[in-house]
Amino acid sequence: MEDLVSLLKKLPGIGRRSAERLAFHILTAPSDEALALADAIRHLKTTARYCSRCFNFAEDDLCYICTDAKRDSSKICVVEQPKDVILLESSGLYNGLYHVLMGCIDPLSGVGPDAIKMDNLLERAADDGVKEIILATNPTAAGDGTALYIAEQLAKVSIKITRLARGLASGGSLEYASRNTLADAFGGRRDMR
Amino acid sequence: MEDLVSLLKKLPGIGRRSAERLAFHILTAPSDEALALADAIRHLKTTARYCSRCFNFAEDDLCYICTDAKRDSSKICVVEQPKDVILLESSGLYNGLYHVLMGCIDPLSGVGPDAIKMDNLLERAADDGVKEIILATNPTAAGDGTALYIAEQLAKVSIKITRLARGLASGGSLEYASRNTLADAFGGRRDMR
Repeated sequence: MEDLVSLLKKLPGIGRRSAERLAFHILTAPSDEALALADAIRHLKTTARYCSRCFNFAEDDLCYICTDAKRDSSKICVVEQPKDVILLESSGLYNGLYHVLMGCIDPLSGVGPDAIKMDNLLERAADDGVKEIILATNPTAAGDGTALYIAEQLAKVSIKITRLARGLASGGSLEYASRNTLADAFGGRRDMR
Repeated sequence: MEDLVSLLKKLPGIGRRSAERLAFHILTAPSDEALALADAIRHLKTTARYCSRCFNFAEDDLCYICTDAKRDSSKICVVEQPKDVILLESSGLYNGLYHVLMGCIDPLSGVGPDAIKMDNLLERAADDGVKEIILATNPTAAGDGTALYIAEQLAKVSIKITRLARGLASGGSLEYASRNTLADAFGGRRDMR
C-alpha cells in the first residue's frame, strides 16, 4: 500500500492525501477494474512509441494521422510537443499533417537547434506534395525563436511558410490584454475591406 | 457614519466590511486628507465632461489628446469606452487620435446603432487628413458586430479601415487558447517570408 501511495504521489497534481484516497479506492475496487488499470498502464508503456515520420504518439511505425488517407497531405503543422497534436485535433480546426519537434530551441536554457527534429522536417518539406508549412510553436520567446530558425532553414524550399496569428483572444476584452498582446493586435491589424 | 458606509458600499468591489473599514479610516484620518478626498470627488464630478470631438474624458471642450499637436491626426482609433482610451494610452503603443463610441451595438440586449456616436465618426472620417480608421472595439460578438456596422457605414469613404489582429496571446501557450482563438490563429496565419 505504501509503495502504491508513493508512486501515485509522483503523478502531476496528486498530493499525499489524494494518493492515499486513490490507493484506498484501488484497494476496495473490484479486482477486474483495478487489474484493467494496471494492464492499461502496462500496455501503453510497452506499445506506445513515436511516429517515425511526424513524431506524434503512435502504436505502430506511423501514427493514425500519417496513415489517414483523408488528411490533407499538402499541409504540415509544426508543433513543439505531441500533446499539442492532441490539443489541435480536439479543436477539429485542422485537417492536414503534423510534425512534432519534440521540444523547442531555448538558448536561455542551453537548448540548441540539435534538440529539435529539424532534419526530418527538411526531408518532408522537400516532398513535392507539400505546399504549406504552418509554424504552430508556442507564442513565447523560445517558440518564436524556434519558428524563425525553422523559417531560415527552409529558406531554400519554395513553399509557403506561415505562422499562427497573434493578437486579441476571441471573446475577451481590450482591458485584459497584456501590452505585448496589444502590440501584436496593433501591428497585425487587418484591412476590413 | 452610516450614510457614508452605505454610499461607499455602492462602489464596485466594496462590500459592507470594506465600506466600514474605509469609513473608519476617513473618520480617524487627518482632516485635510479627508477633505482633499471630498474636494477631489467634487472637482472631478463638476469639471469632467466628454470631449466634443472624440468623446474621451475631458476637462475642457476638447480632450488633451485632441488638442495635442504632436499626435498623428491621420489615424483614428475607434473604441467602445473612455476607459479603453486610458488603457491604450498607458500601453504607449499608439500615437494617433481616438473616437469613443460610448457603447457598442448589442442586439441581444436591445441596443441598436443609435446608441453609438456614429454620425460624429462619419463627419470626422470625411476630413481630408484622415488616412486610416482602426476599429478597436472588443473582440466579442457585440464588438465584432459594431466593427462590421461601422465598416459598412464608412463604405463610401475611401480611407483604410482596419481591425485589431486576433490570435494567440503573446507569451501564452497553445494549451490555454480557446477553440475560437485557435480558429483565429489558423485563419489569420501570416506568411513568414
